[in-house]
Amino acid sequence: MDIPTQMKEMAQRAKAAAAILSSCEGAAKKQALLNIADLLEKDQAAIQAANAIDVEAARATDPDGPKIKRLTLSDGVMASMIQGCRDVAAQHDPVGEIETMVKRPNGMLVGRMRVPLGVVAMIYESRPNVTIDASIICLVAGNAVILRGGSEAIHSNQALAGVIAKGLTAAGLPGDAVQVVPTTDREAVNALLTLDEYIDVVIPRGGEGLIRTVCQKATMPVLKHYKGVCHIYVHEDADLERAVDICLNAKTQYPAACNALECLLVHKNAAEAFLPAMAQRLGAAGVRFKGCPRSLPLLGAAAGPAVDEDWGFEFLNLTLAVKVVDTQTEAQAHIARFGSNHTEAILTADYARSLRFLREVDASLVVVNASTRFNDGGQLGLGAEIGISTSKLHAYGPMGVRELTTTKFVLLGQGHVRA
Amino acid sequence: MDIPTQMKEMAQRAKAAAAILSSCEGAAKKQALLNIADLLEKDQAAIQAANAIDVEAARATDPDGPKIKRLTLSDGVMASMIQGCRDVAAQHDPVGEIETMVKRPNGMLVGRMRVPLGVVAMIYESRPNVTIDASIICLVAGNAVILRGGSEAIHSNQALAGVIAKGLTAAGLPGDAVQVVPTTDREAVNALLTLDEYIDVVIPRGGEGLIRTVCQKATMPVLKHYKGVCHIYVHEDADLERAVDICLNAKTQYPAACNALECLLVHKNAAEAFLPAMAQRLGAAGVRFKGCPRSLPLLGAAAGPAVDEDWGFEFLNLTLAVKVVDTQTEAQAHIARFGSNHTEAILTADYARSLRFLREVDASLVVVNASTRFNDGGQLGLGAEIGISTSKLHAYGPMGVRELTTTKFVLLGQGHVRA
Repeated sequence: MDIPTQMKEMAQRAKAAAAILSSCEGAAKKQALLNIADLLEKDQAAIQAANAIDVEAARATDPDGPKIKRLTLSDGVMASMIQGCRDVAAQHDPVGEIETMVKRPNGMLVGRMRVPLGVVAMIYESRPNVTIDASIICLVAGNAVILRGGSEAIHSNQALAGVIAKGLTAAGLPGDAVQVVPTTDREAVNALLTLDEYIDVVIPRGGEGLIRTVCQKATMPVLKHYKGVCHIYVHEDADLERAVDICLNAKTQYPAACNALECLLVHKNAAEAFLPAMAQRLGAAGVRFKGCPRSLPLLGAAAGPAVDEDWGFEFLNLTLAVKVVDTQTEAQAHIARFGSNHTEAILTADYARSLRFLREVDASLVVVNASTRFNDGGQLGLGAEIGISTSKLHAYGPMGVRELTTTKFVLLGQGHVRA
Repeated sequence: MDIPTQMKEMAQRAKAAAAILSSCEGAAKKQALLNIADLLEKDQAAIQAANAIDVEAARATDPDGPKIKRLTLSDGVMASMIQGCRDVAAQHDPVGEIETMVKRPNGMLVGRMRVPLGVVAMIYESRPNVTIDASIICLVAGNAVILRGGSEAIHSNQALAGVIAKGLTAAGLPGDAVQVVPTTDREAVNALLTLDEYIDVVIPRGGEGLIRTVCQKATMPVLKHYKGVCHIYVHEDADLERAVDICLNAKTQYPAACNALECLLVHKNAAEAFLPAMAQRLGAAGVRFKGCPRSLPLLGAAAGPAVDEDWGFEFLNLTLAVKVVDTQTEAQAHIARFGSNHTEAILTADYARSLRFLREVDASLVVVNASTRFNDGGQLGLGAEIGISTSKLHAYGPMGVRELTTTKFVLLGQGHVRA
């Protein structure tokens, strides 16, 4: 069978499974997740053996790269996948709820029932833990899912897919609800991206190039973010000691995260008091600075001059761009021009300035007096998440179980006809 | 200037206007709509003169077609556009509301603020009234809009765009918030569909071919429906007199609408009592039937045999496909296979059957004991609408002002850092 036909049949099976999942009892979905957790424990050795094949192959080309770390299913990663299944099984299942039932003037009742999206296609990097994390959150929302992980993780992903299928069928649910694309051929992705008759949404993760290609080729909706270029604007009236703590947390707690701080904007009247103290604390944590001409003399030895390309750049490491601004307006204009609609923060003691920032700044999370690192499903109270969307349609911000559902209208009539 | 450059500059101006609109006072948006209403009254003669140029040109190729009716800005259409402006100005403006503010365990507050989508591109048929209807609903939701109407309506659309720009600037809002593409060249549409850096969503209306092309080419999200193939399933226990009334309304009140009935499914035990009465009433209203072998003898003289292509076909006229089914399960399987996720209805006296239909049938509106014709923003209580979405992302069903907005997360901290 050629690859496009194979993908089409896979998508058709997914759609059939989604129809069953969409109206199954919530208890069956939860049981499936608990089964998967148990099987991951029981089959841990076999899964790690399959993973070792992938890791060994990857070592041949890239012995010490970060790829190996992402690829490896260590005992710690296994434990966190297992806990994830149990946590998501305990989450609220919103499917079937009817929201905001209203009575129309003619007496008919109109509501919105929360329903699954249908079939989700995930395209992601060589991180086999995502195979479990993405599957369970799609399942609890009642969706079938087609997984296409990085080609380096193919053995790991197929082992995990086997566990998931066993967990599903033991709970009386269709094993086709989670399917791993069995080939690493790129033609498979191209074929999937045209199957909008069966696939309701595609969620790509990974490099910006991959995500842009998916957006260009997909004929179905795409949920994604390209990158996270997050700013903190420190106004002159901010509590500067706390501001240092917040910047340290935002920049250094996990520098490779999409919600890490990449550019610090400081009001001119705060620069002299704030920047040396900030540079000292963050510098001690290994941060290097790229400063504008006004900030540079205040940043100490770890600083060099910023070039045009540093504004709006996603460093993903311990580099921080720093710019002194004259006004909040200038800070917001910088964010509008160079930000990525991901996470933007203001530190200020002023009520009106905080409200203005909240209202005017366009980002999936707008923060007052806290770290940018809170843009995360768990931190914001959504539970497990499948990624962060910076396109505004459907979901703007972290995507949890609820963001993997939609609502359909339901109408309860008593013989009503339209006048 | 070449067309792609021209479109890019237009989109950049739209994005700049959207930034202003997104945080303007609600009163200014409402004033702009009232200004537009007044100007439409004042400039009615000039608008109708521009429209007459378009109508005359269209008559040359298609003297009596339905195109002429859609294209003509009659006094009645003008009055309805003017009333539309005033109605939408009176609607609730949700922008800036914060929904579901919750306190996290660490004490920080997390909410969702309703915000505009940004820049909307509308691609639509030669119906110049849509130029006003779409603009005002986008504006009240705080969006800028780029309009590309059918080429036959270009003079009408430019006259209307002039009125809108005057109404906006008189309210202190940027005239660029509504722009009409000044060329009928198709290259303009192709260029717009790649400008995802500036355009947040595209809404195509018109034929299925056009909409599919937009989905293939667009790199930004698309809100759309391809077609409306709506079914009514009459269960054996339905009130058959009311069922005839409902089918008559669903089929004949506006046969060319996307929420009109296209296929009637009847339980075998109701067929003999229901179909002759139905065929008589609907036949008298001009309906012709395409029946399955079991229904055909019960449908009278206006019926012919249905062929395979009639199932799932959007007739958009007074033709109705009719099929006898053995069970509700068979009816739902028919709907799953041939429906278009638009509007599906069951007529029954049974509580459990109605709940099962509501839960299991996948359509933007699922109806119990009422006409399919209620799938409409005004009828469902959303106010003015810009179309009906049958893709599940973001909006599933009629799209009113609220569906032209999204929510961003807002976080109110007090020096919070992530642990």
